[in-house]
Amino acid sequence: MNEYRTPKEFREICRNGLHTTHTSGVLPGYLQANLLILPSREAQDFVDLCYRNPVACPILAISKEDPTALDNEIFAKQGEVDIRTDFPKYNVYRGGHLISQKNNCNEEWNKNYIGFLIGCSYSFERALTIAGLCPKNITLGKNVAMFKTSKYLNPAGIFVNCCYVVSMRPYKPEDLQRVREITRKFKKTHGEPIDWGFDGAKRLGIHNILNPDYGDMIEILPTEIPVFWACGVTPQLAIETVGHLIEGPVVSHAPGCMLVCDAKDDFFCKNSSF
Amino acid sequence: MNEYRTPKEFREICRNGLHTTHTSGVLPGYLQANLLILPSREAQDFVDLCYRNPVACPILAISKEDPTALDNEIFAKQGEVDIRTDFPKYNVYRGGHLISQKNNCNEEWNKNYIGFLIGCSYSFERALTIAGLCPKNITLGKNVAMFKTSKYLNPAGIFVNCCYVVSMRPYKPEDLQRVREITRKFKKTHGEPIDWGFDGAKRLGIHNILNPDYGDMIEILPTEIPVFWACGVTPQLAIETVGHLIEGPVVSHAPGCMLVCDAKDDFFCKNSSF
Repeated sequence: MNEYRTPKEFREICRNGLHTTHTSGVLPGYLQANLLILPSREAQDFVDLCYRNPVACPILAISKEDPTALDNEIFAKQGEVDIRTDFPKYNVYRGGHLISQKNNCNEEWNKNYIGFLIGCSYSFERALTIAGLCPKNITLGKNVAMFKTSKYLNPAGIFVNCCYVVSMRPYKPEDLQRVREITRKFKKTHGEPIDWGFDGAKRLGIHNILNPDYGDMIEILPTEIPVFWACGVTPQLAIETVGHLIEGPVVSHAPGCMLVCDAKDDFFCKNSSF
Repeated sequence: MNEYRTPKEFREICRNGLHTTHTSGVLPGYLQANLLILPSREAQDFVDLCYRNPVACPILAISKEDPTALDNEIFAKQGEVDIRTDFPKYNVYRGGHLISQKNNCNEEWNKNYIGFLIGCSYSFERALTIAGLCPKNITLGKNVAMFKTSKYLNPAGIFVNCCYVVSMRPYKPEDLQRVREITRKFKKTHGEPIDWGFDGAKRLGIHNILNPDYGDMIEILPTEIPVFWACGVTPQLAIETVGHLIEGPVVSHAPGCMLVCDAKDDFFCKNSSF
């Protein structure tokens, strides 16, 4: 059995290939992050995409040239992180197609690549749990259910015709306002839901709520409605959409398999902008 | 004839009720701003709406308590601006309904209100003109054409089920990439288009491109396509959608009738985020 008490230790476990599955419920209380690594030539377009779609693609930190350093050490100190190895699992894309899943991307990384850490909705799951609104994926020990949508991102550069990916958690309608209020504070980790209810599923272009595009199927009881948050898998769908315009491989985390950071999950809740 | 050489002089002209129409083409080279004034109780919800939808609702400056002071003097120095009087025309809403248009909102303002200046796409029209891509609304001396869409904003607090408003300028398809590149730099004034073409109109839920919801009709030649930018009238449509939840009047500028600021129109182009 793998033992880990700190994010640093968990990252080492992943680096050694000893945890290769999703991180839902891992080290509750710590911020988790999504990943996109792409050639520097496309980096400005991606930064602009994130600026124009901060709910789906909130940039937390950037790694340039040195994959063992982030531009903000609050997430992980230099030398205590390696974005090529410290996620449990990686997706490798070429020409917009997923070509392999690996436990590291040492082969794909070179110094002309830039890595982006992006906020993850796991970061508010503890706050929901504390409030007595534990997400079902946690209680069931499953990955969260994620869906492609037909809700368009605001385009930026090569990123045209890209759509939101959403995570879905079922809740009782009477809990919706509390769920919205609790997650709203997590501004840099998708914040409050972007839609809800079966009408919301329709608006988002989700045709079969029992057949997620990523993650695990989560049952919705007759007393529940689906609640949808923007999801850090959105950049991966963007790569599937426009990846034919990008030379060389693009790497992301595998959906649900995040980097566990040193920062606490409520790190971004403390500074209100107003 | 009204003479004005500086934004400060133009604001005085408006303050004295001597310019009461749109500001397209007024003092080219200066930034123009949209307005929303609402009770402080709803201000945090609105700030969150803007944070989650920065392309439609980019906050430039805030005026609290004192309507002759902005929190950033780059737009207008204290005492040289009055947000109650310096827009050519105002819309007054109650319960989500437009109840009157006036040349000032002295009656509606009180110290429990907060005013938000929001970026305006007029700010990039000069750059387009310099590049030989002068928007038709300018050459025709008309207000820009604006449309309600069915593209949803990311919700925030009371602001649920609110949709984008877009401005439309016709261009030749072969000019689209240059138009995108030129306006892209204007990050705080809507940036590059959010959609284009007749397919884009369909995606946005615009059924009759010759019948704008705000501003003037602008003809589209057979050699042209419509190009759509997010528009600072979006907050007004949001007020129409959820205004029944707000006690007391809400005030905005009248569509196309902006505040002319001291800052230059390319002020936000200089600082790239990457």
